[in-house]
Amino acid sequence: MGKRPLIVVNFKTYAEGTGENAIRMAQYCEEVSASSGVEIVVCPQAPDIYRVSNSVKIPVFAQHTDGAGAGSHTGHITAECVKSAGAGGTLINHSERRLLLADIDSAVQAARRAGLSAIICTNNVAVTIAAAMLAPQFVAIEPPELIGSGIPVSKADPDIVRGSVSAVKRVAPHVDVLCGAGISKGEDVAAALELGTAGVLLASGVVKSKDPKAALFDLVKSI
Amino acid sequence: MGKRPLIVVNFKTYAEGTGENAIRMAQYCEEVSASSGVEIVVCPQAPDIYRVSNSVKIPVFAQHTDGAGAGSHTGHITAECVKSAGAGGTLINHSERRLLLADIDSAVQAARRAGLSAIICTNNVAVTIAAAMLAPQFVAIEPPELIGSGIPVSKADPDIVRGSVSAVKRVAPHVDVLCGAGISKGEDVAAALELGTAGVLLASGVVKSKDPKAALFDLVKSI
Amino acid sequence: MGKRPLIVVNFKTYAEGTGENAIRMAQYCEEVSASSGVEIVVCPQAPDIYRVSNSVKIPVFAQHTDGAGAGSHTGHITAECVKSAGAGGTLINHSERRLLLADIDSAVQAARRAGLSAIICTNNVAVTIAAAMLAPQFVAIEPPELIGSGIPVSKADPDIVRGSVSAVKRVAPHVDVLCGAGISKGEDVAAALELGTAGVLLASGVVKSKDPKAALFDLVKSI
Amino acid sequence: MGKRPLIVVNFKTYAEGTGENAIRMAQYCEEVSASSGVEIVVCPQAPDIYRVSNSVKIPVFAQHTDGAGAGSHTGHITAECVKSAGAGGTLINHSERRLLLADIDSAVQAARRAGLSAIICTNNVAVTIAAAMLAPQFVAIEPPELIGSGIPVSKADPDIVRGSVSAVKRVAPHVDVLCGAGISKGEDVAAALELGTAGVLLASGVVKSKDPKAALFDLVKSI
Repeated sequence: MGKRPLIVVNFKTYAEGTGENAIRMAQYCEEVSASSGVEIVVCPQAPDIYRVSNSVKIPVFAQHTDGAGAGSHTGHITAECVKSAGAGGTLINHSERRLLLADIDSAVQAARRAGLSAIICTNNVAVTIAAAMLAPQFVAIEPPELIGSGIPVSKADPDIVRGSVSAVKRVAPHVDVLCGAGISKGEDVAAALELGTAGVLLASGVVKSKDPKAALFDLVKSI
Repeated sequence: MGKRPLIVVNFKTYAEGTGENAIRMAQYCEEVSASSGVEIVVCPQAPDIYRVSNSVKIPVFAQHTDGAGAGSHTGHITAECVKSAGAGGTLINHSERRLLLADIDSAVQAARRAGLSAIICTNNVAVTIAAAMLAPQFVAIEPPELIGSGIPVSKADPDIVRGSVSAVKRVAPHVDVLCGAGISKGEDVAAALELGTAGVLLASGVVKSKDPKAALFDLVKSI
Repeated sequence: MGKRPLIVVNFKTYAEGTGENAIRMAQYCEEVSASSGVEIVVCPQAPDIYRVSNSVKIPVFAQHTDGAGAGSHTGHITAECVKSAGAGGTLINHSERRLLLADIDSAVQAARRAGLSAIICTNNVAVTIAAAMLAPQFVAIEPPELIGSGIPVSKADPDIVRGSVSAVKRVAPHVDVLCGAGISKGEDVAAALELGTAGVLLASGVVKSKDPKAALFDLVKSI
Repeated sequence: MGKRPLIVVNFKTYAEGTGENAIRMAQYCEEVSASSGVEIVVCPQAPDIYRVSNSVKIPVFAQHTDGAGAGSHTGHITAECVKSAGAGGTLINHSERRLLLADIDSAVQAARRAGLSAIICTNNVAVTIAAAMLAPQFVAIEPPELIGSGIPVSKADPDIVRGSVSAVKRVAPHVDVLCGAGISKGEDVAAALELGTAGVLLASGVVKSKDPKAALFDLVKSI
């Protein structure tokens, strides 16, 4: 494929990844990305996107954007706004921020119009395929029961990853598959790539680590 | 009371109040606030809070914050994060971003812990009283059918405003009542204050105005 | 007060309280109500209301109704419809079916128009008071962490019950307070009544019991 | 195909299709189905399913079912329960009762386990294809702006119907496509069938008609 593997680090609302800490965490990611050549994307909370994207050169993604555009949509996060704040993409439908099917579609469309990459998060093979038909750049399969568990999906449930990769390749070949949930080590990433994914989505494995930089170096070591 | 009347300008996701435009719009508000002595609060989209709060000295409020704190809450907007980005308060439960009752309560609690003022938006007298029992700083009564109508609530439905003010005064005397929907002129603001409110919440009347600064000067002229 | 204590048995979607089983479970409740003089209300799933209400003479409540009336509201459960099916009341905002604040208000209004009693479920003292301001017949305080725990709220957290009772008495004296979560024995009911409640809301303690009739007799024995 | 065209009549929460009226409306549908040989399915509110299915021999579908099974799911409508009440299928994700993507998937799975047919309602071609990947029996494309408009989708937007039919045939050939929105006359049904659909979904065109039986006879006349 020629593409570099992708590691997406979701800061969630962890204190370690919020406000000033978000900048420092993003700088760790940038440093490891620069020295390893692995593409690392960071996802801070919406109010931190501007600060973070002005502090690092690696891609910054939103954790969520809505399908709403300009208009009477108080409290919504528009793709245009996060783009203007420096984001290059967005998670959509994370398991902690699930959306209506019609709203996932409009969020993907809004991201496309604004020039943002979209990663739709999903929970099983059928939903992954459905999401892929909405034509995002990525789908990220994350079995909810493994999120934050420390048990990597790439080991605990390789079939769900393999099944997602092969089905998406068949029906939506331009969509890349990521996997997430329980990823914290380089061997988990290696296993994910061997299963045919384009990379991984993780959070606590880095952000809640006592030594995030060491955790990041471990993640990329086998790529 | 000794308190100054309050004008809350909600930028919604209007193009005229997003990104660089959010800064300019906030500066207009700051200028009119400074020259009139009227307190004006601006509510930009979450990704714009940092930029706006670093550009003006008037209070910046979020359009929405969640009750979630630090943790696994991808895509949520925490009170701590918007506080760290420079916000001094937040709208909660705007008619375009309604919340579960239990989540309004936790959002008010989270705002309080973070040192943010909370304005709960409501749609009728009963809901206003219920919201006031959750002990925010403000409740803002906005009949949904009048939002964006150009017909000011203070004229179209003075009873809903008067009823909210008197009921809140009786059961939750520390909570101030704002009113919104259809407000665009100084006489609407004057009428709202005469009905006993602490101020108004408005959006298109300023942000979609051809001349927002003139609209703002008109708003404050009779205070 | 002269009122009889009230026991509300929520069948949830338990197999033991669905379809034909719902009728049998309701008949147990009717039998114990008749022989003890304690008022017992049963809450089957919406599709079972008609059958259950035609099989027993005790009150049947819905587990949820929407605020929508007649019109284009596919998939909503109207108060008129459950009334026509034989219901006498409804739970609103159960912790497993939380609603927007504005929708709780319209659901209470719709119940009132249809002649249904409304029980708004709540999670803490502040939310209980807020709910009481919407003028339902009952509020039912159920700390979510105790639901299904087997640890009765009336013992684990008497202050939340006492606080709810005294606050509601002060600001909304016509609203009766129930409590729920973890209730399974007669002594839990007795404790709840001593704390000033009008009765209890329970589910698994009866419906999932090996001997529901014995469980019911135990519940009412100390009343 | 050998299959008979299908007409699905959604009673929504219309007074004319609720309670005793639901039985009479279903009987009209049964009469027209019997005399024309066209398959007509009726969708009453959940509390009416039992009464309606015991009054007519044509299929009765729910307007909504949840993915939840037996358990602690107060206020949810389980597939098992509507099946036990006599339903043979269910609408899922109607535009007036939109669901999270993951919940559409679990609702389809729950319907399948209970032996119910599932019709997923959708709003555009991309969403229709996504829904079809979840393997329901039917997808029903209904552009929201045409619902209740009296302007039939089969005339106003034949491309959305044609596009849905051809895309679904390609990626999910076992899923049949229905179309809805604005359908009220026999010629609309004929147009829908010519576009390759298996039938239509309609509501007000029959249920709010002054003479529902005449409206039904008109609908089937050109089949």
